[in-house]
Amino acid sequence: MTATRSEGPLAGITVVTMEQAISAPLATRHLADLGARVIKVENPGYGDSTRHYDSVVKGTSAHFTWLNYGKESAALNLKDPADVEILVAMLGRADVLVSNMAPGALDRLGLGIDSLAERFPRLIIADVSGYGKGGPADHKRAYDLLIQAETGSCAITGTEGAPAKPGIPIADIGTAVYVYSTVLAALYDRDRTGAGAVIEVSMLDVVSEFMGFALNQVIHTGVEPIPVGMGSPMIAPYGAYPTSDGQTAVLGTTSDREWQRLCEMIDRPDLAANETYAHNDDRVVHRAELDEAVAAWTREHTLDEIAAAGDAAGIGNARFNTVGDLAKHPQLSERGRWRTIGTPGGEVPALLPPAAARSWPRLSGSVPALGEHTDAVRGEFSQAAASATTSGEEA
Amino acid sequence: MTATRSEGPLAGITVVTMEQAISAPLATRHLADLGARVIKVENPGYGDSTRHYDSVVKGTSAHFTWLNYGKESAALNLKDPADVEILVAMLGRADVLVSNMAPGALDRLGLGIDSLAERFPRLIIADVSGYGKGGPADHKRAYDLLIQAETGSCAITGTEGAPAKPGIPIADIGTAVYVYSTVLAALYDRDRTGAGAVIEVSMLDVVSEFMGFALNQVIHTGVEPIPVGMGSPMIAPYGAYPTSDGQTAVLGTTSDREWQRLCEMIDRPDLAANETYAHNDDRVVHRAELDEAVAAWTREHTLDEIAAAGDAAGIGNARFNTVGDLAKHPQLSERGRWRTIGTPGGEVPALLPPAAARSWPRLSGSVPALGEHTDAVRGEFSQAAASATTSGEEA
Repeated sequence: MTATRSEGPLAGITVVTMEQAISAPLATRHLADLGARVIKVENPGYGDSTRHYDSVVKGTSAHFTWLNYGKESAALNLKDPADVEILVAMLGRADVLVSNMAPGALDRLGLGIDSLAERFPRLIIADVSGYGKGGPADHKRAYDLLIQAETGSCAITGTEGAPAKPGIPIADIGTAVYVYSTVLAALYDRDRTGAGAVIEVSMLDVVSEFMGFALNQVIHTGVEPIPVGMGSPMIAPYGAYPTSDGQTAVLGTTSDREWQRLCEMIDRPDLAANETYAHNDDRVVHRAELDEAVAAWTREHTLDEIAAAGDAAGIGNARFNTVGDLAKHPQLSERGRWRTIGTPGGEVPALLPPAAARSWPRLSGSVPALGEHTDAVRGEFSQAAASATTSGEEA
Repeated sequence: MTATRSEGPLAGITVVTMEQAISAPLATRHLADLGARVIKVENPGYGDSTRHYDSVVKGTSAHFTWLNYGKESAALNLKDPADVEILVAMLGRADVLVSNMAPGALDRLGLGIDSLAERFPRLIIADVSGYGKGGPADHKRAYDLLIQAETGSCAITGTEGAPAKPGIPIADIGTAVYVYSTVLAALYDRDRTGAGAVIEVSMLDVVSEFMGFALNQVIHTGVEPIPVGMGSPMIAPYGAYPTSDGQTAVLGTTSDREWQRLCEMIDRPDLAANETYAHNDDRVVHRAELDEAVAAWTREHTLDEIAAAGDAAGIGNARFNTVGDLAKHPQLSERGRWRTIGTPGGEVPALLPPAAARSWPRLSGSVPALGEHTDAVRGEFSQAAASATTSGEEA
């Protein structure tokens, strides 16, 4: 075991972010998780729109709390040239700029990406859009649901005739992790080349990547996958089944060998011996009757009995949990995954980030009130802004 | 615009990966996308299990094609000590080891993570598990569906009483991007510290991160979100509506101001004026009747008319697409997002990776046949393996 250090791997890196909602805020929160200083530029009075979704976390919204601890909030009025100068001074000292503002918003500030890249050649600029530049849709608004609908993510979720949007905002979150990872790659690259980077990530491209398996299937077979609720279109039996103690077990088989073991587990050697069900392709055709055979057994057993039998037989199994069940999940609590973060209303629990090296510190931080760090940021960068204006040079 | 280089940012980096399925293969494919050399160690005769899912892509499976181009395949028999020595020699020269083997598999090879980290202090080791180390579930099998069920991802997807698994394998894909991003952070960190890293990522922790907004809601209000199909539990009206030309439009409102504009668009000024629907909280309560009001209008218009009206009114809108629609999406084709990759059966189309800096090359590559590079890899590393055995030192 390596000793834990006090500084994260991004100590000394400054990130300026003009962001709201999820895709940029999750990316910059993860940069903060690694020790970067993240200055979130918000408009005075309103700020990030997710601040206003609700106020359930001691006065702060559920979304905003999730995505914004460990950041500074600087409320700048970007209609005021003096505040734009402060922003430019910040960019002159920053390593990374992240933006998911509406298309053209940076240009209207006189801060178009091309001119920023020219002016600050070591700056890493990451810009998020819905549909990318060019093409017939580049002007269209993009929210998570809209992109999931456009990319077929909803068409492969739910049941036939009743498609559904995945509850996790895959388009937003996926975009966030690609912004995050590409910024990390650009920091590594800058050490070698001395050059910053312009990174443009579109939500459409991100979810299209995640659809890669389904795209290959449809391009090469012409057959659309039909969503089957809790199951998988490609394997059977597999899904959610009721238990004798009123819970829901999730289990199934991923291979013909597992199918034999599953039949033994549910006391149906006749099914194991029946050639009709020997191969996955055949079982997919007979999905309904096999689901019923599994359910007939699970209805006679408690969840604990089913889990023990599945583990013994080498059959993957899980519990269908609600969000409240996840909050109490022993696998999170017993592994010490919860810690405390600050919010304007007081301390609240939050999960540790999902990935880090053993030796890196698990940094904490607070959710900033709107403009909490405006004065400090102004003080820090106003002299640089003034001298840049006077001398005509950059800070 | 910056000129495109010929080498990716990870040129010179060698990744050895003991992987199958999605979570590790997508991570290492993205490392290859950035120019790393990726050597995929597979067992002879069978290899990565996703090779056998189907053979729709000119003889290769849809999943395997999606996740494995640009890699070398070295088929090594890790029950043979001579092949383990080859593997160790590879690790002696590698920068990164990725593994999503079953718990304990590396230990059984005499290659436990702790001993590898001690022996190769500059090596970055990333290991994937289902539930992490410790806790009551650390022995349990983990597949995408099982983890999505355990984390509540399915409970917030589908409809009340009919939950669904998101079709995109969020647990697998999310884990992949955290492996990928944390390896990039560790490469950056190694330049400063000289030290490698041990990175352990669990699928449970990844999806729990993605549930952060829902966790905060439930922890602080005790109220479980109820999934509403194509809609969002938090806003209304929002969802999928039929059009006069037999398509499905997706649209809705995210704010009270947009609600006013939406009412104007659907020729219902009476709704805009009605205080009952003035605020989102109220509209959520009256979701069903507002959905019907929107649908009454969409049924009288074509998708193109709806898109034009929505764009003009500043109302986000999209088309509900199938996977086949995505394959033909003009926003992908007109932006040049498709290119050609090699497979053992011939060239096939593939999407460019979702994120890169402008100046980085868009590398291509081929999907390797099982063991296609075994002889070359053996030749390259066997001398190092032999000298390590003779001298008792590492290669």
